[in-house]
Amino acid sequence: MLIFIGLGLWDIKDISLRGLEVAKRAEKVYVEFYTSLFFSSVDEISKILGKEVEVLKRSDLEENCRVILEEAKNKDVAILVPGDPMVATTHTALRVEAKKIGVESKIIHSSSIISAICGITGLQSYKFGKSATVSWTKSRAPVDVIFANRSINAHTLLLLDLHPAMKISDAIEKLQEVDENLSKMYAVGVARVGYDNLVLCNKMEELKKYDFGSPPHCLVVLSPKLHVVECEYLRIFANAPDEIERFV
Amino acid sequence: MLIFIGLGLWDIKDISLRGLEVAKRAEKVYVEFYTSLFFSSVDEISKILGKEVEVLKRSDLEENCRVILEEAKNKDVAILVPGDPMVATTHTALRVEAKKIGVESKIIHSSSIISAICGITGLQSYKFGKSATVSWTKSRAPVDVIFANRSINAHTLLLLDLHPAMKISDAIEKLQEVDENLSKMYAVGVARVGYDNLVLCNKMEELKKYDFGSPPHCLVVLSPKLHVVECEYLRIFANAPDEIERFV
Repeated sequence: MLIFIGLGLWDIKDISLRGLEVAKRAEKVYVEFYTSLFFSSVDEISKILGKEVEVLKRSDLEENCRVILEEAKNKDVAILVPGDPMVATTHTALRVEAKKIGVESKIIHSSSIISAICGITGLQSYKFGKSATVSWTKSRAPVDVIFANRSINAHTLLLLDLHPAMKISDAIEKLQEVDENLSKMYAVGVARVGYDNLVLCNKMEELKKYDFGSPPHCLVVLSPKLHVVECEYLRIFANAPDEIERFV
Repeated sequence: MLIFIGLGLWDIKDISLRGLEVAKRAEKVYVEFYTSLFFSSVDEISKILGKEVEVLKRSDLEENCRVILEEAKNKDVAILVPGDPMVATTHTALRVEAKKIGVESKIIHSSSIISAICGITGLQSYKFGKSATVSWTKSRAPVDVIFANRSINAHTLLLLDLHPAMKISDAIEKLQEVDENLSKMYAVGVARVGYDNLVLCNKMEELKKYDFGSPPHCLVVLSPKLHVVECEYLRIFANAPDEIERFV
């Protein structure tokens, strides 16, 4: 059995009681740190679990995944994953490969930026459209998603490249390279969700000047219209300027 | 201080270590059960926390919220919330009210259907559009969201009314009442996420005939195009029929 266990947003304290219990019982425990930033070391995780934990590289879960799958044929193998497992496509592909060779699998969920972003920004979960990633390589893809979402009055959650970790100012620069008009759009910059949660709402050209501190960062580009509570929340908790009230 | 603590998807074992620690330290602990179904009783929660926990009614968090807010002026008051807090708009509104009278607040996140649905269905997180709720009252709103999302090739997560708990067959019936064309669309029916995770993909008219067992249920209406891994995952884990391969 292959068991994907979510570690949650920030550090080992974000694992669920169920995740901890199952990891402790597993015969072999791996952890991967490349799909999200995570702030407990493998030693800290080992200590909480009371057993050895081995760090996986990307290749161990992709081209060389057969080693782990063979092991999971006869043992309960747990893979600890930052955030909620399966939000990263690597994990869904691995689960498919496991099933093909007769290895059962299960998922133990945890907190994820995908739902946490609602609480942090006050933006309503039912108003988020498709998300996208801003990567270091120039790409129209996230810009197309922003415009598609705005066409149906939806917000856009933009996750930022992690290799190396991108800041909000870098992301806005990348978006502007594709379409300068984005500079005037309003967005919410968010840093370190699950820890100290710095949140600021302004035009992208203004957010770009601000130092959000250390990563992880993400960015939400607002829908053309805001719900009255969304607006009030952004004014109170994200220091949004007066003029966003005209989007209500 | 007002502290919103996510309980996660299913029962008290889905709380995070951080959530448990903070709840144990809080001077007063409340729980609410009306924004999601949850499968631990208040007594079981009290036992794990080693302290008394009081159940809140909807009105305690809405029109009568002043009582809790006053209490939070001088004490650390924790409110335990099924899923991830703030996905329900009731909680964002309460956080705004708290700030207005000078009460600080924080959020401790947990697992939510919003991210868990990706792992359960294999549908990619970046392809979900806006979500909607199907309620017992006839409404065009969820149907409009489905069509808006499909116009940008996005999936639609439909949450189902909880008062009383709606089943997938009821939800499809409600959608058909608004637009009979939906019957031929492909969707994924999902029951009991975080527990036994029953997942089936088919045309809505076929899903309607199936008994998914006890709630909670939800439904994902598929985008017109599927990614090859999404399709493979649905074939393997959701018993999707052959013909969905033509959407890749």
